[in-house]
Amino acid sequence: MRFLDLILKKKAGQELTTAEINYFIQAYSADAIPDYQVSALLMAICFQGMTDRETADLTLAMARSGDHLDLSAIPGIKVDKHSTGGVGDKTSLIIGPMVACLGVPVAKMSGRGLGHTGGTIDKLESIPGLTSSFALTDFIRQVKDVHLAIAGQTAHLAPADKKLYALRDVTGTVQSPALIAASILSKKIAAGADKVVFDVKCGSGAFMETLEDAQHLGRVMYAIGQEAGLVVHALISNMNQPLGHMVGNRLEVYEAVQTLQGQGPEDLHELCLALAVEMAFLADKGRREDLRAQLEDKLHNGQALAKFVEMVEAQGGDGSYLTQPDQLLPASYTADFLAPEAGYLQAMNCQLVGEASGLLGAGRARLEDGIDPTAGLIFDHKLGAKLAKGDRICRLQSSSVQDFGPALAQLETAITMGDQAPKLSPIILDHIY
Amino acid sequence: MRFLDLILKKKAGQELTTAEINYFIQAYSADAIPDYQVSALLMAICFQGMTDRETADLTLAMARSGDHLDLSAIPGIKVDKHSTGGVGDKTSLIIGPMVACLGVPVAKMSGRGLGHTGGTIDKLESIPGLTSSFALTDFIRQVKDVHLAIAGQTAHLAPADKKLYALRDVTGTVQSPALIAASILSKKIAAGADKVVFDVKCGSGAFMETLEDAQHLGRVMYAIGQEAGLVVHALISNMNQPLGHMVGNRLEVYEAVQTLQGQGPEDLHELCLALAVEMAFLADKGRREDLRAQLEDKLHNGQALAKFVEMVEAQGGDGSYLTQPDQLLPASYTADFLAPEAGYLQAMNCQLVGEASGLLGAGRARLEDGIDPTAGLIFDHKLGAKLAKGDRICRLQSSSVQDFGPALAQLETAITMGDQAPKLSPIILDHIY
Repeated sequence: MRFLDLILKKKAGQELTTAEINYFIQAYSADAIPDYQVSALLMAICFQGMTDRETADLTLAMARSGDHLDLSAIPGIKVDKHSTGGVGDKTSLIIGPMVACLGVPVAKMSGRGLGHTGGTIDKLESIPGLTSSFALTDFIRQVKDVHLAIAGQTAHLAPADKKLYALRDVTGTVQSPALIAASILSKKIAAGADKVVFDVKCGSGAFMETLEDAQHLGRVMYAIGQEAGLVVHALISNMNQPLGHMVGNRLEVYEAVQTLQGQGPEDLHELCLALAVEMAFLADKGRREDLRAQLEDKLHNGQALAKFVEMVEAQGGDGSYLTQPDQLLPASYTADFLAPEAGYLQAMNCQLVGEASGLLGAGRARLEDGIDPTAGLIFDHKLGAKLAKGDRICRLQSSSVQDFGPALAQLETAITMGDQAPKLSPIILDHIY
Repeated sequence: MRFLDLILKKKAGQELTTAEINYFIQAYSADAIPDYQVSALLMAICFQGMTDRETADLTLAMARSGDHLDLSAIPGIKVDKHSTGGVGDKTSLIIGPMVACLGVPVAKMSGRGLGHTGGTIDKLESIPGLTSSFALTDFIRQVKDVHLAIAGQTAHLAPADKKLYALRDVTGTVQSPALIAASILSKKIAAGADKVVFDVKCGSGAFMETLEDAQHLGRVMYAIGQEAGLVVHALISNMNQPLGHMVGNRLEVYEAVQTLQGQGPEDLHELCLALAVEMAFLADKGRREDLRAQLEDKLHNGQALAKFVEMVEAQGGDGSYLTQPDQLLPASYTADFLAPEAGYLQAMNCQLVGEASGLLGAGRARLEDGIDPTAGLIFDHKLGAKLAKGDRICRLQSSSVQDFGPALAQLETAITMGDQAPKLSPIILDHIY
């Protein structure tokens, strides 16, 4: 098999065979195909797309390229959740405990933040003492005991995806629904998930900027899951402004605690309920309406928060930060971002907001960088708010950065004021299942 | 400037600036951009195309990447001819002497054969004694004295094109009118041409298989020439069968001699006249009708052949092979390819015919391979001939290969017989100027 022929086939809009896709992934993993040929194929895929069958083959080939976590010792249906990445997205911290309260085993592998988006592991590890490094046996034991564990991805999962993603990142070939779907699902399959709820973010801070693109990705994920033997349900959620009011690691743990007590911001509360309902539904725990009521109950009766405390303490974290969450708020330095004129808060560029938070120390440009757990943004208002000139839009805080100038400038670019009240969209825009 | 931004821009269908294209070629020539990024850009260009302005910028940037031949010491307008490569194409050997007879200075750089197409330098060097390696001063002196010199491309012309072409060749990105045009014209500009007649081959043995594709390439070349300050006139010529009757190095010199005496096959004669008229026209030698008559005259009065002999001898070749051309015909081994059934000679796949000739030793798979000057094919018939079963279609000959089986099998695949007389096209399909 000549790799050049695969490039020419895809360039001409033809379908690659299963054998060709397996050859591609195996040979590339073995460093037997040069990057310059693979990047040409990837660009051709961006233009010509891949059929569901091709994408499923790519998914499975990448899933087979490394370890496969065997979670069969854990009884029950293992349902994972995946988000395409947003700003202020602390849903994993909330829905994990929620569905664990219903007896759904949650064995979650999460990542760290990079660029303008945060990562669940960074948020969790901002709780003093907590570790997200596990031996597999300890991880499985905790899921059996607590029904909930969140680990950093330490296993050698889908290394072909990792290698391919690094190349896509520098060759302008990230944006392809087929390649995105294969990348996500290959890791979920390797991590031992039976079913996945997929939160496709849509808007100014998301991979998919338009509803059409997000719906398309959701449908591709659903179809590829069917081809690859993984049940995938997708929700499309709004990412035209940060989720909730807080962006930053400890700040997001704080907001997660509020939400686990039933006192979270409306958009965050609603999204977490929808995702948790879908996870519990996929775990065969009952009808969606009943599950919604049960989950609301877990928030209000304290069980959801208690489950989170139980998990945090099982992972060595100091649970008092959750029972007395005001400890999560302080930072050494603060500044206020004020409305530059009177008017409606019309639009936010979420990516720029995420980058502003990163400038304060909450994020990292490279994976090896450290982060400031206290840094971040606390918004006083959501889109649609009517403000007077000088009203505070958000508070900036950091313990590592004293000069707030760059972050304030970034926010100024990110936020649009106007005379007209903006048209607001709901937090859940669509579902695909 | 980040090269990734150039990839993303082109992927999105946007136009690259002159500064961006200059950066691309300069940095890539300096090994400062990795091949995997460049191949991604090239593939995006294959899908999104380039505007004439972008292509002209690319042409000029590549032309500037190496030496620029200064032919200003040669009086008159330097008109070059370029063909996109065909099978049995010996036109350079014929039109060079023809237009030199009219006083047009012909300072031609030519290449060697590769794959299924032959090369002018291989054909010339099949004449015993002839060399195509020159010092620039000797090359210029010969053009001044004889009005004609054909040299192998030894100068460091457009090295960026060479590097880029090697990458295109292994990444499926050869087929792009903009990239093809820039590749050709950059070398012509670097080689000091003032004007170029461009022979776009169209058909089964050509880069461009359809008339539409060939016309498009011709129009691109014309437009890019205008942007880049090089006058380009293009003819579209038929390459649905080998040009003339002979394919192979000495065999093609033989057929060139016949044509230079006004006794060439009709298609070859007609194409050479058309190209020579256009070259002389661009050299301001008069009106096309007058030039055609003058050039016909040069063929019949012996001056054209005499000019060829003069050039060959000036380059150290044995002129007696041209005055007694039967010496060019013998080879050690021969075989006949016979009509497998009665019927019309309906179609030939020229690429396969060229490859059959290569199997006999007339071509090379890699540039470092040697060739057998005597090897090749002599066709008894052209498309449209009505044959009885067992009539000879062509003769195969070689001095280096005794087993004619593979070449005969290749010809069997290449040639289609049928009951219906095929629709024949003229040799000149269109012109663009």
